Amino acid sequence: MNWLDSIKWDDRGLVPVIAQEKDTGDVLMFAWMNREALQKTAELKRAVYFSRSRNKLWFKGEESGHVQTVHDIRIDCDNDVVLLKITQLGHEPGIACHTGRHSCFFQSLQADEWQAADPVLKDPETIYK
Amino acid sequence: MNWLDSIKWDDRGLVPVIAQEKDTGDVLMFAWMNREALQKTAELKRAVYFSRSRNKLWFKGEESGHVQTVHDIRIDCDNDVVLLKITQLGHEPGIACHTGRHSCFFQSLQADEWQAADPVLKDPETIYK
Repeated sequence: MNWLDSIKWDDRGLVPVIAQEKDTGDVLMFAWMNREALQKTAELKRAVYFSRSRNKLWFKGEESGHVQTVHDIRIDCDNDVVLLKITQLGHEPGIACHTGRHSCFFQSLQADEWQAADPVLKDPETIYK
Repeated sequence: MNWLDSIKWDDRGLVPVIAQEKDTGDVLMFAWMNREALQKTAELKRAVYFSRSRNKLWFKGEESGHVQTVHDIRIDCDNDVVLLKITQLGHEPGIACHTGRHSCFFQSLQADEWQAADPVLKDPETIYK
């Protein structure tokens, strides 16, 4: 059986994907893949997602240069979630978020309010020209 | 505005949730929450998910004793994914997976095959009596 056939794709043909930085353990982002995206990710050892808003493959870093090298591809016990161990390229420390932050998960619940808990490392206007 | 109103719930009223072990950085599991589950999680500082198969709140650890203490609740830049920083109780090292493993993400892609890369820490039959 092809390894892609083990995945339980949802009714849109997608699977949720968590990208975790290999060296720090930080969870950098969450996105979706279709079968072609996951196949390309494995082939290129570079994260390729499926953009639900643009309805097409999204080669992470194609605009920003913030490419993700993939070291390990894992699936969970239900075969319906993917975890990538990655290196975030293009800036030091890595920037995965379109806001110019290290991680997309920068908002923390503090006293019943969402607070931006992590700094902007680079002005998004200079990332996306 | 109530902090729960900031979340972009999907068409089923759910949001995807990543549970990450605070001390190790390990991603232990992925599940879903509805509004009530997230409210209870914040209130009790204990992970409460929404079980899509049983269609009800799932107080993680209610059967297994493998409760998750919640230290930090984060959302991503799109306000549609939750990241929990947790401590996995009930066993040392923590067991989050129903297979008796530390993490649900124990299957790794190796030479086009999924391989169980992490050991079973406890027989599931002794976890769920």
